[in-house]
Amino acid sequence: MLNVDKQNATFLYRQVIELITENMDAGTLLPGDRLPSLRKMSKASGVSIPTVRQAYVELERRRRVESRPQSGFYVRHRAANDIVRPIRTTALKPVPLRCRSLMERVYDGINNPNLIPLGIANPSMAKPAAKTLHRTMKRVMARAEERSIGYASTLGEPALRRQIAYHYLDTFGAQVEPDQICITNGGQEALLLALTTVASKGDVIAVETPTYHGMLELIDSLGMLAVEVKTCPEEGVEIADLERTLLKHPVKACMFSTTLGNPLGVSMPDVDRERLVQVLVKHDVALIEDDVYGDLHFDGRRPVPAQFLGSKARVLTCGSFSKTAASGYRIGWVVGDEDIDEIARLKRAFSCSSGLLQQLTLAEFMASGDFSRHLKSLTPVLQRNSERMRALVAEHFPAETRTSRPVGGSVLWLELPEKVDAEQLFDDAIGAGISIAPGHIFSPCACYKHFIRLSFGHPWTDKTEGAIKWLGQRVHALK
Amino acid sequence: MLNVDKQNATFLYRQVIELITENMDAGTLLPGDRLPSLRKMSKASGVSIPTVRQAYVELERRRRVESRPQSGFYVRHRAANDIVRPIRTTALKPVPLRCRSLMERVYDGINNPNLIPLGIANPSMAKPAAKTLHRTMKRVMARAEERSIGYASTLGEPALRRQIAYHYLDTFGAQVEPDQICITNGGQEALLLALTTVASKGDVIAVETPTYHGMLELIDSLGMLAVEVKTCPEEGVEIADLERTLLKHPVKACMFSTTLGNPLGVSMPDVDRERLVQVLVKHDVALIEDDVYGDLHFDGRRPVPAQFLGSKARVLTCGSFSKTAASGYRIGWVVGDEDIDEIARLKRAFSCSSGLLQQLTLAEFMASGDFSRHLKSLTPVLQRNSERMRALVAEHFPAETRTSRPVGGSVLWLELPEKVDAEQLFDDAIGAGISIAPGHIFSPCACYKHFIRLSFGHPWTDKTEGAIKWLGQRVHALK
Repeated sequence: MLNVDKQNATFLYRQVIELITENMDAGTLLPGDRLPSLRKMSKASGVSIPTVRQAYVELERRRRVESRPQSGFYVRHRAANDIVRPIRTTALKPVPLRCRSLMERVYDGINNPNLIPLGIANPSMAKPAAKTLHRTMKRVMARAEERSIGYASTLGEPALRRQIAYHYLDTFGAQVEPDQICITNGGQEALLLALTTVASKGDVIAVETPTYHGMLELIDSLGMLAVEVKTCPEEGVEIADLERTLLKHPVKACMFSTTLGNPLGVSMPDVDRERLVQVLVKHDVALIEDDVYGDLHFDGRRPVPAQFLGSKARVLTCGSFSKTAASGYRIGWVVGDEDIDEIARLKRAFSCSSGLLQQLTLAEFMASGDFSRHLKSLTPVLQRNSERMRALVAEHFPAETRTSRPVGGSVLWLELPEKVDAEQLFDDAIGAGISIAPGHIFSPCACYKHFIRLSFGHPWTDKTEGAIKWLGQRVHALK
Repeated sequence: MLNVDKQNATFLYRQVIELITENMDAGTLLPGDRLPSLRKMSKASGVSIPTVRQAYVELERRRRVESRPQSGFYVRHRAANDIVRPIRTTALKPVPLRCRSLMERVYDGINNPNLIPLGIANPSMAKPAAKTLHRTMKRVMARAEERSIGYASTLGEPALRRQIAYHYLDTFGAQVEPDQICITNGGQEALLLALTTVASKGDVIAVETPTYHGMLELIDSLGMLAVEVKTCPEEGVEIADLERTLLKHPVKACMFSTTLGNPLGVSMPDVDRERLVQVLVKHDVALIEDDVYGDLHFDGRRPVPAQFLGSKARVLTCGSFSKTAASGYRIGWVVGDEDIDEIARLKRAFSCSSGLLQQLTLAEFMASGDFSRHLKSLTPVLQRNSERMRALVAEHFPAETRTSRPVGGSVLWLELPEKVDAEQLFDDAIGAGISIAPGHIFSPCACYKHFIRLSFGHPWTDKTEGAIKWLGQRVHALK
């Protein structure tokens, strides 16, 4: 039954995964079928029971199988949509002009409150914590009165930095000193400070493809060049391709979302994170880890950021409350380790400090347990929205449409029939009162021309459903 | 009596000023003496009555004379302190290493809440508007509930941009479109965006000497070089020296505080502003105008920023609420004219947008008239503090100490006896629980080694007085 290469010990569990998925794709294992028991599989393959379990758990994470208590693992009923396919380009690119002006129009759409907001990644709005935050802020105002309108320190309010450090400790046992954390004006300024710390004008930065457009604009604005690294639609960055890229280009830093990347909404497996930091050390390349969606896994489990894997890699991790609590507070942070002094110096030169009242409010929001409770109630809403959106896409878009399989966050990435121009669809959608994000802006060479990103990070309404149906019909017409 | 050069029409009023000051310095005109009447002076000099009046009014602005209703102009009793003397260097300089580490220590002092805060320029704390702002913010929370924790648009909340445009119109009749304004994370990010818009790595930027240390850190952080332009301690930038600098160095942009510069606290006369923009046009050099103290003139009069003088000069004006209302809100702005699209693009790439709740609050704070009322009650407090501080310095510091004559803002610039090392004084002061700003950090070549800047922008207490006395005694000991 099994044909594993035992010499390749690291990948034994992967080979089990491949075997199972091949059997599912071939129709040998059908939805509802029970997988071979751990013991049986171990015996048949000669692979240890823990390794088989690791493979099954990973398949569960990818939502290909589901575990039933006291019974075993079963093949899931697959959604109608096939998964998006990888695209890859390797040229060094700044953001091209056409993409710049399209980016402007996308933001005009995002900033227009009269449109149905499928274009913006704003998960916290799916179940806003406004009431709790307002109550907390009023308490802070009463207590800190005059101080609360004054300057925060450059690194940020100590109470908030302690809470963030505690959150890391509590979530995955990572030891972070509060003084290694610099509070920023949201995750975007965190990326700016991290990138300016490790690279300068003319340097080459490796990014995932597809990747968050804000990174591309930032890299371009600083006069740097982006080079794309291939991703797997279910596991993020392909390490082998990263190594090829590092050999071929003089990459100064990588800027990756290792957890719940945008727009794919998937996370790197732990084994890839370990390999990632090894590769970084080997090639002496820094990693800027965009971790702003980290707390939004649907299953509540949270992979460990690369920074905390105990390697000697130079990693700067960027976090934010924009995606989890209050985007308008503009409070994010960088964890900097040895780079923290330089980060602080740049923070001071670029914007002095961040808003104190919001920092005091978020510190109390975390300390009271309200933040954890909020996350626990937010992620199921996001998961439900995600499933609804995928189901509606399967129903209303052409059959050849493929989608990502987000395991968290608030966005769905769609590969439309090749003839469909996403820019045209974007323009038509704006005309119909719907904002979406065309695929072009997620790559420095604007290659995702028949892709779009849809957001499910807002309260689900009839309007949302109507908008998805409208888009499906429009795609039918354009294909 | 008069020896004016009538060919030199522009400077007729200046020659009147010089004549009067020379007579005062020579002891011909003593404190309490009445100046010749406008008519008499006009007749004696052949200069028109309006020109003589212009000169007398300027002398009043400089606080050398005072007008008494129905009576005329009288020589003021001078404060004991002589005015600081100009220093000038011309080398192209980044911030030197020694200054960097001293800058760190100055900020440690500023960020330490247990010190008497004479080191930070934070005028709004002299009479905090916390209660009114809190009340306004609570109203906004109730009204804008969930929206208020969401993203603002890239350019910023339209209601606030309208209020800022109205403020310009109301204050000096300047016509600014709200869409020419981009809201920023305080004045410092405004400077960052403006500077990145007009210059890049390696470019030379002209600054005043002495100048605000945050500009120097910013220029240095972006890999640019600073060149110093001489200032007059009572009139700011010397235009003749600016012209010499522009001929000698490939200056890409000027970064000046034309109104209430920091640390001198003086404003350029209107005639110099006119010449400034002419020079900028002639040499094709951009001006970044740091106008964050603009609304804090003691006499409530507000010079017109260079941007609004109707010239073709490329000027980007940076404003902020940090110095007038709430430093911790981190809300400033850039007025950009033709550069506004590029500014918005950079704003998005660097920090997405600024805090929405604070923007909505400040918009309402302005619209209600509370902001104007607050300014009217704040500036007299600052003026009183300024006078108290100058009197105490005159009393307790060595006789050879010289001070600036601030006409607004919240800082006093002191020239100590030459033997005094301001860094030593800074260290001693920290030890005694007082934070001050040593002169070194106000110049890219750290040349103000026996200067310090003291802030009077906080509620005046016995501790403030005690700290100034302590500093005076320490300076006596160090000289």
